Order: sequence, then structure tokens, then C-alpha cells
Amino acid sequence: MKFLKDLFDIRSVSGDESEVSQFLLNTILQRKDSWKVAPIIYSGEEFHDCILLKFGSPRTAVFAHIDTIGFMSRYENQLVTVGGPELVDGISLVGEDNMGPIACKLKIYNGDLFHDFPRAIERGTYLSFEQNLKLEQDFIQGAYLDNRLGIYNALELCEELENGWVVFSTYEEHGGGSMPFLLDFIMKNDPIKQALISDITWVTEGVGHGGGVAISIRDKYIPRRKFLNKLIALAIESGIDYQLEVEDAGGSDGREIQFSNYAIDWCFIGAPEDNVHSPNEIVAVHDLQCMIAMYKYLMTHL
Amino acid sequence: MKFLKDLFDIRSVSGDESEVSQFLLNTILQRKDSWKVAPIIYSGEEFHDCILLKFGSPRTAVFAHIDTIGFMSRYENQLVTVGGPELVDGISLVGEDNMGPIACKLKIYNGDLFHDFPRAIERGTYLSFEQNLKLEQDFIQGAYLDNRLGIYNALELCEELENGWVVFSTYEEHGGGSMPFLLDFIMKNDPIKQALISDITWVTEGVGHGGGVAISIRDKYIPRRKFLNKLIALAIESGIDYQLEVEDAGGSDGREIQFSNYAIDWCFIGAPEDNVHSPNEIVAVHDLQCMIAMYKYLMTHL
Amino acid sequence: MKFLKDLFDIRSVSGDESEVSQFLLNTILQRKDSWKVAPIIYSGEEFHDCILLKFGSPRTAVFAHIDTIGFMSRYENQLVTVGGPELVDGISLVGEDNMGPIACKLKIYNGDLFHDFPRAIERGTYLSFEQNLKLEQDFIQGAYLDNRLGIYNALELCEELENGWVVFSTYEEHGGGSMPFLLDFIMKNDPIKQALISDITWVTEGVGHGGGVAISIRDKYIPRRKFLNKLIALAIESGIDYQLEVEDAGGSDGREIQFSNYAIDWCFIGAPEDNVHSPNEIVAVHDLQCMIAMYKYLMTHL
Repeated sequence: MKFLKDLFDIRSVSGDESEVSQFLLNTILQRKDSWKVAPIIYSGEEFHDCILLKFGSPRTAVFAHIDTIGFMSRYENQLVTVGGPELVDGISLVGEDNMGPIACKLKIYNGDLFHDFPRAIERGTYLSFEQNLKLEQDFIQGAYLDNRLGIYNALELCEELENGWVVFSTYEEHGGGSMPFLLDFIMKNDPIKQALISDITWVTEGVGHGGGVAISIRDKYIPRRKFLNKLIALAIESGIDYQLEVEDAGGSDGREIQFSNYAIDWCFIGAPEDNVHSPNEIVAVHDLQCMIAMYKYLMTHL
Repeated sequence: MKFLKDLFDIRSVSGDESEVSQFLLNTILQRKDSWKVAPIIYSGEEFHDCILLKFGSPRTAVFAHIDTIGFMSRYENQLVTVGGPELVDGISLVGEDNMGPIACKLKIYNGDLFHDFPRAIERGTYLSFEQNLKLEQDFIQGAYLDNRLGIYNALELCEELENGWVVFSTYEEHGGGSMPFLLDFIMKNDPIKQALISDITWVTEGVGHGGGVAISIRDKYIPRRKFLNKLIALAIESGIDYQLEVEDAGGSDGREIQFSNYAIDWCFIGAPEDNVHSPNEIVAVHDLQCMIAMYKYLMTHL
Repeated sequence: MKFLKDLFDIRSVSGDESEVSQFLLNTILQRKDSWKVAPIIYSGEEFHDCILLKFGSPRTAVFAHIDTIGFMSRYENQLVTVGGPELVDGISLVGEDNMGPIACKLKIYNGDLFHDFPRAIERGTYLSFEQNLKLEQDFIQGAYLDNRLGIYNALELCEELENGWVVFSTYEEHGGGSMPFLLDFIMKNDPIKQALISDITWVTEGVGHGGGVAISIRDKYIPRRKFLNKLIALAIESGIDYQLEVEDAGGSDGREIQFSNYAIDWCFIGAPEDNVHSPNEIVAVHDLQCMIAMYKYLMTHL
């Protein structure tokens, strides 16, 4: 519980992931001795702010992005977006520049974005949604469930994982860019043929709260049907609740696997959330539990 | 003739190319002993649903994509597109899910897409245009000439090819994704400096039926002028009818060569079609014949 | 002075960079004996029209693109754009086809582009803005300051550079495509962890003429904050005038570094210009001088 609260409180807008990366590395170092298999840990400047964990002899890799959407200060109290945050006038934003901590509100005039902080904010300062995490019996609500819960799922998976890569990527919310070098490293170090994207998707007319983890048949991009058939057969066999998602928009770290230099099958599997990219993202606890159970099952049986 | 009809009847919307891939592999295995040079064949799960043929000592590679545009079922009788099909209310679609074969019509309401099949279709089921191939003396008409004729051209080329790669790629209609690993394999196995894209282009005010094969000076992307000059000089020398195309939109497997990790010159060369991405694509037989002749000439002289 | 005039007079629209590449190579060969360190020169067909210079033991690479925006003739006196030129009716364009030199004007009817040359222009002929370079005491004005001044900066840097790559890239104005193979070559030959983009940016409400070289905190893409902090600390230490830029659009060769297979930090650093992508681009001499001084400082201290 304390871990979840701490994880959710760290600001890590795309491009500025060093603090959450350090927090995750500390967590991994503390926990790894209690894990069934001790992974080899790859991190440090050579990997920018990414972390890779190798367990046993991997056939499959799991990717969880550690960055979030947010804002950046421009000139004359203007803000520009990082990734695609939900834009609601008056939302609370927080950050810090060389003059100290910042707490302000987003103001929207004629579609342009401003802050209302009494002093100027240094150019290029990152701002995030103010966190207001609510952990209730059936629902988790707050900012950045996307992708703090994907990270949480990946860490839960580590406890019993015998074979596989668990990878923490950066920049996913703003076009990506870490996946190509991560894939290159994986394929040269201990190659895989399959990848699962541990991330949070959307509640829609076809995917609802409480229906189980979503297995995405497509978003803007389309995994290979042969691999989807294999996954869905395993999902049925597992007995764990799942929902099949079919969208024609949206993307994930899977996009960069699709366009990589390697023939790697991929699929996005994650709990659905409502109020996407707002400070009030909400996920059903049951769906998160199914996500964790499904990853444990698939990583054993794939 | 039977071969062409069989080839046109196989459904292979992007992401679901395994059946056409198997059909092509069988064709290649049956025919290769009658070819001037027996190629080395690379296929199987390592290459997903792609196939590579290596003839002799390659200087140039030819790429033909084996996928097509189409549709996929979503929720509540909705459809989403795969690639960019022409959207006409009432067009006949076919497919199959676990409950059996599907034949229905595309219905468009307020820009949203639906099917009119009496029962629900399983989520994520692919649908294709119903095929209605007409092979007449001067014209070929039907669904998916793009890129069944590009495949046909590549197979005709194989008959006398002495040196070169002939490659069957996937996912071209939906953003691509197989080209990077195909190029990587080629460049590590037996590298090339030049590539031709065996695909079908558009009839426009500058490129018409019967004028010969189109050599594309540009679509959205632009091949290197030095290479185009070399190609055009050879085309003149060949005496084969050709037309120069200049567009500012559209793309092909050439796009992924342009952005690959390798300095490879590329050019799109193919017959033009009218009624693009509809069930009634139409190509002049003369233009297809010029396409086949031009590929044979260029692969010898480049 | 003669060198600058000659450099500005060469036409090199994206895809057709062979002439400027040859001119640069000749310049490099003439000058290199007077440089503090003689670089290893990589050029020729293996690198298409790009040139790489390796000085000593590189930690950082500098990239300057040698192509420009422009136009290409289509059918029936139509023109299509290459990159994103400013479109003003009546602007003077020049080029050459097999029938001889061309001088004409851009005509815009209903948003479509035409030329008014009395004869037809061969399909696929490149046209450029007519050059009208003005070198005054405080300002440089003309076509293609973007990126002739980035090239000029890179060549000035060569005079005293002891360690580093200086790279001349192609296709930057039209989506890119040379950066991936250039990065691949660099990383296999003598790898680096950092890159600077020697290019020209925009005068905006936050970045003005005379304020010094612009260090770009972001355009459409975002360099890693850790690297920006290091750069800005060095910029302060240098005492050279600089301005911090924050935009949410625009791109550069940095984009292709962000999405490359390598974990390389990057940043765009360049003088700002007004009248972007027009024949009257204008840059303050002070800002160009600061750009040159900043590159010399950073390449020593990074």
C-alpha cells in the first residue's frame, strides 16, 4: 500500500523519467531476493532511464512504460502538452523549477493553454496533474493509473517469474523512442519471439469495468492473427476473466515492436480505465487482479 | 489461369496472411524446378508469414506485398477498416468466424460502419470484399489486383531470374512492419544496394490505362534522383512502354526502405489501376505485360 | 565570402543532393590540411550523398542537413511541394531539365500549384527558390539559410575540432531517411552517446533576433531532461549568449536519433530565422556567431 502511494506520487512526464527509474531500481534491489528467480538487472546511463530484468531463459518479454502525460511551460505563462492529457480548465498542476515548488491551475483561453501561477515559471519546466489517489475496495482512482498499474503488474509478475524479460520503458506517451534500443539489446543478449504490453486501456461500449483484463485484438495497429489465436486459446484455458478489445485508434509500446527490425509477435493486455489521461483515471480492482493473474499464466504457458 | 483465380480467391487482410503465404510457398515449391535458377527459400515462423527467395548473387531485391485492405468486426455490428478500403454502402463482404462462414453487406450510417449479417460476428473477425474476378482480353477486373498482380509479376520474374532477391512482405496496407526485419535479414545474408517495389499504382490525369508500366518518380516519399536517372535511362533503352508518375501522396514498401538502417536505393514500378481499393479494381493487360517485361529487363541490367 | 555565395547558389532539393555533396567534399579536401586535426572522411555511393568526418576519438556527433525544401513538376504545369516551402503566389523558381534551364513563377489557383514557364517542364523536375543572398553587417538574408548556415557552422567547427563526428545528412526536409544508416555506421565504427543538431530554428515570441543561439528544450519531440540540464549548465558556464526554445511542433534530424536503435542523447542548437522556408529567410549575424562559438565550446566540454 505504501509502495503504491509512493509510486503514484513520483512525477515522471515523458523525457524526465530519472526519478521514477531510480525508485523502481531501489524497489527491485530490495525485493529481488524474495523473488523465486533472481533476475539479471540492466540499468544505468547506457540504457538512459530504462531498466531491463532478465529471468532465466526468456521466450517472452513484458514491457511497462514508466512515463506519464503532462505539460511543459513555454513563454508568457503558456503551457504546451506532453503526450495527450485531457484538457479541463481549472485542473490542478504541480511541478518544480529552480525557484522552488509550483502548484497552479490549467487555464484554457481560445484553445491555448496557460497556467495561473503568480510568478513566471522557467521555460521548459514539466508540470503534472496533482495526485489524489483513492484506493477503495472495488476501484482505484487517481492520476496516472496509466501506467503506474502496468508497472505494478510487472512487479507482481516478477515474484514468481522463472523465464522472461521484464522491461521498463520511457517516452511511450510522447511518440516513443526507447523501445528500438531496448529491443536491440534484448535481441542481441537473449532473444525472444513474443512480447506482452503491460499497460492500461480504455473503457468503451465493448469493454467495461469488472469484465476482466482486456486482450487487445487491435488498436491503431494489429498484432498477427496467428499469435492472437494462440493467446486467446490460452486465456480461455486459464479460466481468468478477460474481454476482447477491438479499436481503430490508440497505440502502445507494441507499435514500436511492430515496426522494429525483428520479427516479434506482440499483444497489448491490460485492465481498462475510464476518465483516460485525466487526474481521475479509474480502474476496477477485479480487472487489475485478472491482469496480474493473466500475466502469470501467460508467461508460464506461452 | 487457374492459378490466378485461386490466388485471387484467398483472403489475406493485413495481419492474417498465413493462408496466402502457405499457398505461395506451395506454388514456389511446385514451380522452382522449372525456373532457370533454383532459389534458396527462406520461410517459416522466423519470418512470420513472409517468404524470401534468393537467386544467385543478388544486386537488387524485388518486394511484393501479399496482404490486402479489408475490415474487422468490432462491437454491436460495427466494423472498423484495415488499411484504406473504398467505402461504398451495400458492398458485399465475406469472412468466417468460429460459428461459420459469413456473407454480408457494408452499411454506412453517419460515417460509421456496420454489417447487416443476421447474427453477431465474433469480435475481431476479418472481412474482405467478395471476389468477382473478370479476366478479359484487354482488362483484368476484380478485388485485390493490388497486390495480387504484384505477386503475379514477381512469380513471372522468377522464371528467368539469375541474380536477385524476390521477397513477399506482409502488413503493407496497414502501416507496414515486416520490411525492417526482411531488410535486416537480406543485408546480413547477401546485401543489395537497390530495390524495386512490385505493386499496383493509380490511374491519374498523367498516368492512364494502356500507356505501359508506371515508374514512380515520387509518391509521398521520393527516391534518390541519381537512382531514378539510372532507371529511366534503362527503361528508355529497353524499348518497353512506360509512364513517369509524380504524386505527392500514397506510399508503399519503399517508404520502409527509405527509413531503414541501410543506404538502399528504391523505386516503385507497377501497372496503374482504376477504382483503387474497391472490389472493381481494373488494370490494362498491356500495362501488366509491360510491368513483367520491365522487371525482367531491369533485374538483368541494373 | 565567395565560399558562402557559392554554397548558397547550389540547388539541392531533398533527393537531389549530389551536387552540394560534391561541392562540400571538394571544400573539405581543400581545407582539411589547415584544420587542427585531419579527419577521416567517409563518402561515396556506400553513403549515398552523405559525408561523415571523424576527428580523433568522438564522444559527440554534429549533424547538418544539406538538402533544402523546393518543388517538383507534375503533369499539366502542376507543381507539388518537396518538404514544406512557404507558398506565395508569384515567387520566382529556377531549375533545369533535359531541354535546358528553367526560370518561372509559382502560381496558386484554388490551393493548387502551377508554374508559368512557357513550355512544358519534364515530369519530376526539381525547382528551387531563386537565390538572392544579402550579406549585411548585422543580418544575412536569402533562400535556404536553413540549412546552409548549419553547414557553415559545421565547417567552422572543423577548424579546431579535436574529437567528434561532423556529419552531413540528406532528406531532412522531406521526412528524413539518411539518419538511420548514418547512425548505424557511426555506432559500429566509433560510437557516441551524444548528438547536436546544427540547424536553423524559428523566431517566435520567445526567441528573437540578436538574443544568441537557440538551445531547443523541445520541438515536436523532447530530448532527455538529464542531457538538457547538462547542456544548459555548460551554456551558462560558456558565457555565450543563448536563448531557450520551447515549441510543440517542428522536427529535425534529432527526431531520427530519438527513434533510432541506439540510446543517444540529442539536442537541436541553432540560430533563429524569420521568414522560414521562404526566399527571404533572415538570421542575425550575432546569433550565427554565438552558434559557432557555442558549438566549439560544447564539443570541447561535453
